[in-house]
Amino acid sequence: MEKIAAALDRFFAPDGIAIIGASPETTKIRGQLLHLLRKNGYPGRLHPVNPSYAEIDGIPCFGSLDAIGAPVDVALIAIPAERVLPALDDCARHGVKYAVIISSGFAEQGGAQTRLQDEIAAFARRTGLRISGPNAEGFYSARSRVAATFSPALEPRPGEEPLVVGERRIGIVAQSGGMGFALYNRGRALGLSFSHIVSTGNEADLAAGDFFDHMARDDETAAILLFLEGVRDPATFIAAATAAAERGKPVIIAKIGRTTAGARAAQSHTASMAGWSAAYDAVFRRCGIIAATDPDEAVAIAAAFVTCPLPAGDRVAVVTASGGAGAWAADALAGAGLALPELSPALQQRIGEFIPAYGSARNPVDITAQAVRTGGLIRAVELLADSDEVDAVVVVLSLASETRISIDTAALKQIVARRAKPVQFYSYTLPSPLGRKVLAEAGLALHTSLAALASAMRALAQRGRYRLPPPMPPRPAEPALAAALAARRGALAEHAARQILAAAGLPLPPQRLVTRREELSAAADALGFPLALKIQSPDIAHKTEIGGVRLGIASVAALGDAYDTMIAAVRRARPAARLEGVLLQPMAKPGVEMIIGTIRDPVFGPLIMLGSGGVATELFKDVTYRLAPVDAAEARRMIDDLRAAPLLHGFRGGAPADIAALAALVAALSDFAATYRDTVQETEINPVIVHAAGEGCTIADALLTLATGEENPDTSEDRP
Amino acid sequence: MEKIAAALDRFFAPDGIAIIGASPETTKIRGQLLHLLRKNGYPGRLHPVNPSYAEIDGIPCFGSLDAIGAPVDVALIAIPAERVLPALDDCARHGVKYAVIISSGFAEQGGAQTRLQDEIAAFARRTGLRISGPNAEGFYSARSRVAATFSPALEPRPGEEPLVVGERRIGIVAQSGGMGFALYNRGRALGLSFSHIVSTGNEADLAAGDFFDHMARDDETAAILLFLEGVRDPATFIAAATAAAERGKPVIIAKIGRTTAGARAAQSHTASMAGWSAAYDAVFRRCGIIAATDPDEAVAIAAAFVTCPLPAGDRVAVVTASGGAGAWAADALAGAGLALPELSPALQQRIGEFIPAYGSARNPVDITAQAVRTGGLIRAVELLADSDEVDAVVVVLSLASETRISIDTAALKQIVARRAKPVQFYSYTLPSPLGRKVLAEAGLALHTSLAALASAMRALAQRGRYRLPPPMPPRPAEPALAAALAARRGALAEHAARQILAAAGLPLPPQRLVTRREELSAAADALGFPLALKIQSPDIAHKTEIGGVRLGIASVAALGDAYDTMIAAVRRARPAARLEGVLLQPMAKPGVEMIIGTIRDPVFGPLIMLGSGGVATELFKDVTYRLAPVDAAEARRMIDDLRAAPLLHGFRGGAPADIAALAALVAALSDFAATYRDTVQETEINPVIVHAAGEGCTIADALLTLATGEENPDTSEDRP
Repeated sequence: MEKIAAALDRFFAPDGIAIIGASPETTKIRGQLLHLLRKNGYPGRLHPVNPSYAEIDGIPCFGSLDAIGAPVDVALIAIPAERVLPALDDCARHGVKYAVIISSGFAEQGGAQTRLQDEIAAFARRTGLRISGPNAEGFYSARSRVAATFSPALEPRPGEEPLVVGERRIGIVAQSGGMGFALYNRGRALGLSFSHIVSTGNEADLAAGDFFDHMARDDETAAILLFLEGVRDPATFIAAATAAAERGKPVIIAKIGRTTAGARAAQSHTASMAGWSAAYDAVFRRCGIIAATDPDEAVAIAAAFVTCPLPAGDRVAVVTASGGAGAWAADALAGAGLALPELSPALQQRIGEFIPAYGSARNPVDITAQAVRTGGLIRAVELLADSDEVDAVVVVLSLASETRISIDTAALKQIVARRAKPVQFYSYTLPSPLGRKVLAEAGLALHTSLAALASAMRALAQRGRYRLPPPMPPRPAEPALAAALAARRGALAEHAARQILAAAGLPLPPQRLVTRREELSAAADALGFPLALKIQSPDIAHKTEIGGVRLGIASVAALGDAYDTMIAAVRRARPAARLEGVLLQPMAKPGVEMIIGTIRDPVFGPLIMLGSGGVATELFKDVTYRLAPVDAAEARRMIDDLRAAPLLHGFRGGAPADIAALAALVAALSDFAATYRDTVQETEINPVIVHAAGEGCTIADALLTLATGEENPDTSEDRP
Repeated sequence: MEKIAAALDRFFAPDGIAIIGASPETTKIRGQLLHLLRKNGYPGRLHPVNPSYAEIDGIPCFGSLDAIGAPVDVALIAIPAERVLPALDDCARHGVKYAVIISSGFAEQGGAQTRLQDEIAAFARRTGLRISGPNAEGFYSARSRVAATFSPALEPRPGEEPLVVGERRIGIVAQSGGMGFALYNRGRALGLSFSHIVSTGNEADLAAGDFFDHMARDDETAAILLFLEGVRDPATFIAAATAAAERGKPVIIAKIGRTTAGARAAQSHTASMAGWSAAYDAVFRRCGIIAATDPDEAVAIAAAFVTCPLPAGDRVAVVTASGGAGAWAADALAGAGLALPELSPALQQRIGEFIPAYGSARNPVDITAQAVRTGGLIRAVELLADSDEVDAVVVVLSLASETRISIDTAALKQIVARRAKPVQFYSYTLPSPLGRKVLAEAGLALHTSLAALASAMRALAQRGRYRLPPPMPPRPAEPALAAALAARRGALAEHAARQILAAAGLPLPPQRLVTRREELSAAADALGFPLALKIQSPDIAHKTEIGGVRLGIASVAALGDAYDTMIAAVRRARPAARLEGVLLQPMAKPGVEMIIGTIRDPVFGPLIMLGSGGVATELFKDVTYRLAPVDAAEARRMIDDLRAAPLLHGFRGGAPADIAALAALVAALSDFAATYRDTVQETEINPVIVHAAGEGCTIADALLTLATGEENPDTSEDRP
C-alpha cells in the first residue's frame, strides 16, 4: 500500500523563485506575490518576469525566464489562463522544478477551461515539471521564509509583537486557500508556530495527498491540519496518514461535504470530487485522524497537540477560581466523554490545606480567587500533575486583566515541562494580551472557547488511546471462487449467494434448494422441522412483501400448503420473474439480530459494516464501518462502537451472546469483500442471529451483488 | 400559576446608595464598590459607611446609617459575616428598601454559617427588607448607571471606543457572579447593549426567579440570559418564563449540572440545589427557552435575537467570497438542522449576472472576492432578502483587514432594516476592529465562531416556530378516586392499578382477576382465547423473570397447566410475596410497542413521558418529556419528537398506526398524574400496543406507585 509521493523538499525551500506576471501594483494579486515574498524575508533570489517592466520596487524585472541566468527552483505563475501552457513550457525548458499556478479560469469554470486544465496535467506527466494549482492561493513556508502567496494573512503588521507558545510547528494543507490561511491566522493569534501552509487549488498535478505525505515525513512538522473537500488520490492519502500515525504525528481534518449543501458548495468551487461517505470515517478511524467541525475547534485541537503530551487516560481535573465557570467547564468536559472523578479524601485534604473553607477540593477544584492570589493555583496544579488520580488538568480562570495576572509563570513552566500530563488553560472572560503573554511564557496556549477546549481535551484522550492497527493485506484469491464470481453479474438469488459465501468459508446453516414440489418431503426429512421456506429468484430482492417467505413450518402437510400458496402468490405479484425454486432452511434458534454487510466505496474500496438489526439500523443509525479487511480484534471493537452492544453483552439479566462467533463472521465477510474486491459489489447478511455464548450465530438471510462490469473494477488505485 | 415576584424597580434605579464597609483601598472588594459606582457615573447620591474614615476619595464617609440623613434605597453590605445581621437591622430601621450582601461566609461554608444565612432569610420575611445575596458579586444596571459590584468587568478602560450594534438590551441573571459578568464582558466585545446584570449569590431571600420575572416584564430588556445551577422557586420561574414568552422576549439559559461533575461543582460552590432532570427540558420546551452549552454560544444566540427578526422558516442562504469557508458554513448550518435549499434557476440566473463564471449561485452562493469588490455582496444579500426561497441569510467573509472592508454599510443597513429576515455575518479569519465597526454601523454583530453562528441560526428558527401552549389547569379531582388513592401507599399490583386507571377514564381492555383455580374456566369463557396469564402481587415488580407471565394460552387445558406451573414457580422464587391471584387478559392484536409514564419531579411536579418501546427506550434513549398535563395536540408533538416516530407513521410500507388513540391516551394519563399529583408518585404503561389507524391501542401492562406519605406531597409550590 505504501506509495511514494512527490519529493517536495526544494518546493518548500527553493533556490531562486521566479514570479511570472509580476507587477508593482500591490492591490492586485500579481503585485502581492513579489511584495509578500520580500516583506516576509525570503533569503534567496527573487526574479520578477514581466516584459512591461525593467524593474519592480528596485529589483530587476526580466522579459522572460531566458533572461534570468540563475537557478530557479519555483516559478509562481499569475498570468491569464490562456498563456499558462506556454509559460509552463518555458519553465520546463529552463529547469524549473516546480510551478505554482495562481491563475484561475480552469476546471472551476467548466467547459473548455476544464480541457485546458487537462492539458496542464498531461504536461506535468510528460515533462516531470511538478505543478501546484491552478486556481491556488500559493503557499507559505515559515521555516524558509517563503511567502509564495497573495494571502493577506501574510501581510506583516508593523508594531505587532508576535505571541509564541512553543516551537513545535503545525503544517496546513488546504483545498481552499481562504480556509487554509484563515486557520493560520487563527493559530497565530493563539501563539502557535507553523511549518508550511499550502493551498492546493484545482490539483491538476500535485494534490493534497502529496503535501500531506511530505509533512507526515518532514521533521519540521509536529502536527498536521487538513482542510479537504475530496480526496483525489486515496492511496497517497492513506500512505501519508499511515506515515503520520507511525511517527506519532497527530492529524486534524476538516472534511467538507458531510451534508448535501456542503457537498454542493465544495463541488462547485474547486471542481473537486466532494461528498461524504462512511469510508471517510473508516479511514480517519484507522489512521487516528481527528475530525474537526469548526475552525475554532480545529485550531484548539492543534494547539493542544503541540503544547501537551498525550494523556494516559481520560480522567480530568478542573481547577478554577470561579465556581460557576468551573461547573460549566465540568459539564462541557463530561459532555465530551471525559471522566471527572471526585478526588480521594487524602488528595482533597492536601488541597484543602491552602484554600478557604468556601472553596472545594472535590473536582472541580474551586480554589477561590483568594487562594489564587496566595499562590494556590500553582500548588493545586502541581499536586494534580503529580497525582495518579487524574490524567490531565484543565485550569479555568479569568485572564482579562491588563495589569495583573497572579500566575507564577516560571513555576508553571517547570510543572508543565516536568510532568507527562496535559495542562490546558481556559479564560471564561475574553483574555487580555497580558493574559495570553503570561501563558505563552509558560509554553501554553490559552483557550477562549469552552466547546473547543472540551473537543481538544477529548482529542488528546482519543489520540492517547489510539494504536495503528497492523497492516491487513487481503488474502490471495481462490482461483475457483474468483472464476465463479467473474462468471456472474449483478444480484444473485439467496441460494446462489449462500453457495458462494459457504465456498468462501462462512458458516452457513444446512439448506436445500427444491425445484419440484415432489422433492419437498425428502428435503424436509434431511433438515428436520420446523422449517423456513423462501422463494428463489435473482429478480426478487424483497421476498417477504410478495408472500415469498414462510417461517415456522411444522409438518409435511403444512409444507406442501405453504409451497402452493407461495408459488401462486409470487406468480401473481411478479409474473415475469425467473423462479429458480424454493429454499428450505431449519428455523434458527433465538438470539440477538444483527446486520453485517460490505459495500465498495468509489474512493477507498471495500468497507465492512456492522449494525444492530431490525429497525435500529435505520431509525437509530446504529451502524459502524471499517475499511475491509478487519481481523477479529477489530471486529470486536466494531461491536463495542454500537449503542446496541449491551444486547450482546447480556442485557437486563439476559445471557451474553456469542460475540466471538460474531466477530469471526465479521472478519470472514470483510476478508471475502477485500479479496474479491474486483467482482464483489455488495453483500448483506440480514439478519444474522447471534445465539448465547458458545452456540455460534446463524446467517438467516444473505444477499450478494456482483459488479455489472460497467463500473470501475477497483477505484482505490491512484487517479489516472 | 401566575405568581407576583418582588417589585424591583427601585432596586435597579435606586435613589441613594449606602456602601456599608466602604474603603479607599481599591485593590479590595470593599474598596471596589464605591470606586466602580463612581467610575461608571451613578447619578444619585453615594453614602460610604465606615467608622474608620471621615471621607473616601473626596466623598464624606459616615460612621453609621443613622448619620446619613438622606434617602437610601439600596445598601451594599461588605463587612464580615458576623456583623451582617446587625447591619440589616440598621437598614430596616432606616427605611432602606434593598440590601445586597456582598460578604461571603454563609451557607457556602456549611455548618453554623448556614444557620446565619437562615437568620438572614427569616429577617427578610419578618421585616419586608428585600435582600440579595449573601455571597453575591452585586449587580450592574446600565440604564441607571448603577455599578453596584466589584466585578473587574465594570472597570472602565480609558481610550476604549465602545462598539454598539444596536439599542435592544440584554438582561443577565446569574447564580455565579463570575459567569454573569463574563457573559457581559463577551457580549460587550460583540457590541451588544445590556439592561441589567445581576449576580444572585446564595439567594437567602431574592432568588434568580425574582430578577428573571422583573426582566421578563421590564420594557428595557429585549432578551434575557440566565446562568443557573438550580431553580429554588419553580412557581416564580415558570411565571417569569411564561411572562417572557407572552411578550415574545427570548430567553437563553445556561443550566449547569447536566453531568455528575457539573452538579457536584454547582452544589459545592453556592450551596444550591443543583442537578439535572427531564423536568428542566420539559419546562424550557414549554416556555420556548433556548439552552446554551457554552459561553460563546450563549452570547452568539443573544446577539442574534437582539439584531435579527425571527425567521418564518428554517431555509438559509449562505453568501460567501470563499468557496471553502462557504462550504464549511453550509455543513455547519445543515448539521444544526437548518435547510439550505438549492436556489431556483431564475434566482441563480439573476445572481449569475453579477458574479464571475467561477463563482456559484446555487447556495452556498459564492460571489467570489472579485464580485465583493464590485458591490456584488449587497446585491446578492438584497436579492435573497427579497426572495421567498429562503428565510434567512448568512454572509461568510474574511473581515481581517485593518485598512479596507468592501461593504456599503448604508446600503446594508437599509436592506437589514427593511426586510423581516435575519441577516447574520461570520468572519472566518479573526476580524479586525475595522471589520467589527463596519458591521456595527449596519446594526449587525459579527460572529467569529462558526459553531456558535450555527447555534444562533438554529435558535432563531426554533424561536420562530415556537408558540406558547395554552394554559392547562389540571381537571378537578373525582372525590371517590381521590379517596381510593389516598387510602393506599406505594406500589400496587397490576389489577389494582388497572382498576384505578380505568376509573380515571383510561381505555383498559377487559380482564379477570382469578383467586381460585376453579374460576379459571369461567373467566376464560368470558374473555375468549388466546389469553395472557400474569401473577398478581404488590411485592413483585418484575413478573417475567420469575415465571409470572404466560402469553398466548390457547385452551382451557393449557390454561390450567399454565396456572399450576406459574403458582409453583412464583412460590419457589418468592416464598414471602403476598399473592393476590392471577390476571387473565385477552392477547392484544399486533402493533407498535410504546411506553408511556409519569413521574413526579421534586422541583417541577408531575411530568408525562413517552418513549419507543422495548430496548429502544433504554439503549437509544428515545424518550421525551413534558410538564403534565398535556392536551392531545401536545401529545402529537411528543410523538414527533421520537426518532421512532416513523414506525407509527407507516414504516417500510407498513400501515400507519392509530396516532390519535395514542395521543389521547398520553393526554389522559398526563391529566391523571396532574389531577392527583398529591398521591400519584409514578405510573408506567409498558408496553402500550398501538394498532393500525382506527383500531386504537391496548394497554398491555400498567404500573402505579402511590406516594408513601414520606415525601413532600407537592414540591412544585414555592419554597417556604
